[in-house]
Amino acid sequence: MSQRVSDEAVGEIRSGSSSRRHGDTLPHIHKVGVLPKLPLIQEIKHSVIETFFSDNPFEQFKNQTWSRKFLLGLQSVFPIFEWGRHYDLNKFRGDFISGLTIASLCIPQDIAYAKLANLDPQYALYTSFVAPLVYAFMGSSRDIAIGPVAVVSLLLGTMLSNEISDYKTHEYLRLAFTATFFAGVTQMALGVLRLGFLIDFLSHAAIVGFMAGAAITIALQQLKGLLGIKNFTKKTDVVSVMRSVFSAAHHGWNWQTIVIGVAFLVFLLVTKHIAKKNKKLFWVAAISPMISVIISTFFVYITRADKKGVAIVRHVKKGVNPSSASEIFFSGKHLGAGVRIGVVAGMVALTEAVAIGRTFAAMRDYSIDGNKEMVAMGTMNIIGSLTSCYVATGSFSRSAVNYMAGCKTAVSNIVMSIVVLLTLLLITPLFKYTPNAVLASIIIAAVLGLVNIEAVILLWKVDKFDFLACMGAFFGVIFKSVEIGLLIAVAISFAKILLQVTRPRTAVLGKLPGTTIFRNVQQYPKATQINGMLIIRVDSAIYFSNSNYIKERILRWLTDEEAQRVASGLSRIEYLIVEMSPVTDIDTSGIHAFEELYKSLQKREKQLILANPGPIVVEKLHASQLTNLIGEDKIFLTVADAVSTFGSKGAAVV
Amino acid sequence: MSQRVSDEAVGEIRSGSSSRRHGDTLPHIHKVGVLPKLPLIQEIKHSVIETFFSDNPFEQFKNQTWSRKFLLGLQSVFPIFEWGRHYDLNKFRGDFISGLTIASLCIPQDIAYAKLANLDPQYALYTSFVAPLVYAFMGSSRDIAIGPVAVVSLLLGTMLSNEISDYKTHEYLRLAFTATFFAGVTQMALGVLRLGFLIDFLSHAAIVGFMAGAAITIALQQLKGLLGIKNFTKKTDVVSVMRSVFSAAHHGWNWQTIVIGVAFLVFLLVTKHIAKKNKKLFWVAAISPMISVIISTFFVYITRADKKGVAIVRHVKKGVNPSSASEIFFSGKHLGAGVRIGVVAGMVALTEAVAIGRTFAAMRDYSIDGNKEMVAMGTMNIIGSLTSCYVATGSFSRSAVNYMAGCKTAVSNIVMSIVVLLTLLLITPLFKYTPNAVLASIIIAAVLGLVNIEAVILLWKVDKFDFLACMGAFFGVIFKSVEIGLLIAVAISFAKILLQVTRPRTAVLGKLPGTTIFRNVQQYPKATQINGMLIIRVDSAIYFSNSNYIKERILRWLTDEEAQRVASGLSRIEYLIVEMSPVTDIDTSGIHAFEELYKSLQKREKQLILANPGPIVVEKLHASQLTNLIGEDKIFLTVADAVSTFGSKGAAVV
Repeated sequence: MSQRVSDEAVGEIRSGSSSRRHGDTLPHIHKVGVLPKLPLIQEIKHSVIETFFSDNPFEQFKNQTWSRKFLLGLQSVFPIFEWGRHYDLNKFRGDFISGLTIASLCIPQDIAYAKLANLDPQYALYTSFVAPLVYAFMGSSRDIAIGPVAVVSLLLGTMLSNEISDYKTHEYLRLAFTATFFAGVTQMALGVLRLGFLIDFLSHAAIVGFMAGAAITIALQQLKGLLGIKNFTKKTDVVSVMRSVFSAAHHGWNWQTIVIGVAFLVFLLVTKHIAKKNKKLFWVAAISPMISVIISTFFVYITRADKKGVAIVRHVKKGVNPSSASEIFFSGKHLGAGVRIGVVAGMVALTEAVAIGRTFAAMRDYSIDGNKEMVAMGTMNIIGSLTSCYVATGSFSRSAVNYMAGCKTAVSNIVMSIVVLLTLLLITPLFKYTPNAVLASIIIAAVLGLVNIEAVILLWKVDKFDFLACMGAFFGVIFKSVEIGLLIAVAISFAKILLQVTRPRTAVLGKLPGTTIFRNVQQYPKATQINGMLIIRVDSAIYFSNSNYIKERILRWLTDEEAQRVASGLSRIEYLIVEMSPVTDIDTSGIHAFEELYKSLQKREKQLILANPGPIVVEKLHASQLTNLIGEDKIFLTVADAVSTFGSKGAAVV
Repeated sequence: MSQRVSDEAVGEIRSGSSSRRHGDTLPHIHKVGVLPKLPLIQEIKHSVIETFFSDNPFEQFKNQTWSRKFLLGLQSVFPIFEWGRHYDLNKFRGDFISGLTIASLCIPQDIAYAKLANLDPQYALYTSFVAPLVYAFMGSSRDIAIGPVAVVSLLLGTMLSNEISDYKTHEYLRLAFTATFFAGVTQMALGVLRLGFLIDFLSHAAIVGFMAGAAITIALQQLKGLLGIKNFTKKTDVVSVMRSVFSAAHHGWNWQTIVIGVAFLVFLLVTKHIAKKNKKLFWVAAISPMISVIISTFFVYITRADKKGVAIVRHVKKGVNPSSASEIFFSGKHLGAGVRIGVVAGMVALTEAVAIGRTFAAMRDYSIDGNKEMVAMGTMNIIGSLTSCYVATGSFSRSAVNYMAGCKTAVSNIVMSIVVLLTLLLITPLFKYTPNAVLASIIIAAVLGLVNIEAVILLWKVDKFDFLACMGAFFGVIFKSVEIGLLIAVAISFAKILLQVTRPRTAVLGKLPGTTIFRNVQQYPKATQINGMLIIRVDSAIYFSNSNYIKERILRWLTDEEAQRVASGLSRIEYLIVEMSPVTDIDTSGIHAFEELYKSLQKREKQLILANPGPIVVEKLHASQLTNLIGEDKIFLTVADAVSTFGSKGAAVV
């Protein structure tokens, strides 16, 4: 029976005509296939398309009239012209309610986040007016809520004040607009050049760690506002911050501030907890920051607690965004810093926005076009930088509220934007008496959601290296600074990629009893090795970065395995079968490595046999004439074929 | 028959106990295996070992007495104590002859190469005395010939004079020693920290291009000496050099120089050609540079051609290496430049040495320990920097001559070193009248061997991207500078790695008629797809850098394939089988991608089935509880199993 199986399943499998033939009598003959060779230009075209246009964006433009192409192009840049045509009142009801909800959440958050960037509160409100409007026309996510976010605000604040330490100066503000402009240019460039895949190089694990670290850093910074401390360190690392807090304990804390701050923090956390327990009550958590602001402002106004040392917002400028086009540094000594900060902030903002976009798109099964999204973000921030905004992106917390409040399209962002506009025009002076302590509570309650303990536990369970990356970024942020944490996150992500391509896995295969299936003997202890043969699977494409390692690893398997078999009184290994199924590609260094492997095996009087090389590998083996060296009759379709051809000696060994 | 095959070959294959069972009556049951889970510390230990100690260097130290361990340690650092014990007169005969041969080749080359580094000739001779001695004690290659080489000399010359443009100054010399010191430190650090694999990141293709570009740059530079031009550009790019040559054509060329230079160049090229045609006459090419130097020096001394404008060496300092320990910059403004130049030169030198070492080791089937080799190189250059040497490494041309002259061990380097010492002590003043034109001819003849046309043709044939990398480095060197060329080479190498990990291949599989083997339908046009099923193989580990692409690519395959089938009147796809054999690893981002894929498929009412996940993937699927989501009964040992379980509908489609 077993013999019959292999007869049936195996077949003769060589490519081209060769010197020797085995098993000509087998009923089914399958040669190792060779892909039809494409002309060079097609080959290049194919790989360019797969790299940069893997989402096939021009598919829809095929076979269309010019006017239709124009319309499709317009819809492609401004998706609102596509979904807007099917917009109806029913959808608007959802968008209106969710828009109002996120507006009530974003206004207090904005005023608070502006502080993280060392900017006056109105700049964050300006950002929440212009950016969502632009995004609504160009973006492809239906659930994202656009505006200033905590992490990017902190990153900007840190990097900007590294360059210009006095953040009261006009120079500082100009640098902020400059950085915003170049953040937009970076984002747009990535989208237009279709380099969106670059943001995939920041690994999920590193982002989790970075976000958690940034959240804790931000929360600790809020102790200043929450405790009413006047002299506070400008550094963001946990050691400096805690030292500031405790050195101010005896005379620097203000009990009135603490009462207000802690009371509202408890209120916010309780509402958050309620919303978490009962998903239907999500709006309780969503409006609680606004309620906190209203109550505390009124309270301070009545009691004039600001005269007792309770710090208040004091001044928010009224009116719509002024132009800031002339404020951007296009030359001078700050240009370089503006570009650098812009690129970093732009990339981080993009990573956050794309992560949010993808999460919600997966939940509703629609798709986000990464490159188009970047163009939208870029345009939004460029226009923002000309209208007194700073870097905007998608906010995790507000997007979740938006989704739960039943938003249908980006119209909810328009509704929010209009509410913010009305706020700017009419009621900003009312925020004068809002105590900073409440803003601090709002920030703390918001950023704690960025600490994703479950994700960290999953990282620990699934992949220890991912966990390490996560912890590296986390501790980098909290013990040094956001920049260092980000650098560590990127470095670890790259190290992981490099490790992956330098040290691929190899496995010794054995035959599962009663089948012609060969599997890793470590994973399947029942699998038995074949006498006189060693079967090794190489689990990676063979490139310059790993070719030498693979060659030496195979020879080491051979040496170790032979020593062990000879010690057990078994016969020596005569055939080395390399299972090539997972080897999807090989480059010239890989070819060289196989040449060297072949020579080494010849010196040791062993034969090299290849099983199931893929289409590209077969083509390259031929092009380099390595097939002639190894012998075409040594290349088989499956391991089973190779074994049944050469393995007449019989007895299997464990 | 076919049914029987699948019955036999397939079997039931699930992991753990699950809700539903298929095919309980099948005769052989193989579950998808789970590797025994290692404790964390073991797991980390295993991957650290595989990354840094993949050559298992401590194997031999196991179960030895302390004195034996010491001896083994000594032999491990100084391999000469190992092979020296079996050294005999027969081996010495080979080493003596080859040592003399490479000495006769290295002395004229040294004097010429020193010019490339803008140093006086004696420094290259010093280098050829000390470096080979140190290497002979510590190195593990038997064939490499150590000393100054053309490319590293040019690289040093360019980088050093970018920092200190006046190379007549003592500062320049000190910077050269400083760079040499840090080149040694870099090499040693890479070896001690077992980071030797880092040099594998410079791809073979990029090196071929870089070497060819450097060779042509060097050859063009020699037109100065060959044509006797006085005012020559300091730039190395081909445009500046050719402009210098032609602008000097009317009054700057010296015919006497040209006659000498061209005559000896022809002589050298003819002897090279003879040696190439008849391998036994290799020594003709090996001694021809020395003969050229002797004849031309004698000729100039007799005719006093130097008074007719023939440039001569003029001065070579007599005597053994002076100490240069106090010359190295350990502080001051040049320290940074010294470190930077040292790191770059050290890496390039190492790349060249390791490539040579591996090539000859493969030819004779012994093995080179990359990390140990780096420690040897590092020590050699550190000692060199203290004794007035500049960066030494293995020379391609001299190593080949060494091999062909029948060297047996590194003793040939000792012989060469002693000959160079005698030269320094006794006959250096005789080189006074050696015409620069002859040195130029020697350099041109030597570096032309670095242009490896055949390798370039092979690159073109085998891998177009490799060819592009090669050309990028080549044109970078000849049109800009060696540094830019090197930068391009590194950048292209990295781009290739990143491309590889971002855009892995996927393939649609079909069943080979009469077998249970599933193969790429593009490679095997006879393979038929199964009605109602789509089988996709993912050809890569799934990591954060590609997880999103893989998910979207699979969904795109599904959409396209379904549209095509429905258009052909076939039934819609109900099962998506993902063949996971090549997926050797998966990280948390990959797990997320599969979760999202599962959700998208659910929305489309299709089932997700996994076939043959590897041991690590199975472990992680369990750890993340993704198996519970997908269903353990949806995970199979082979594609054939999955098909025979769900594919009752029968008819195959093409």
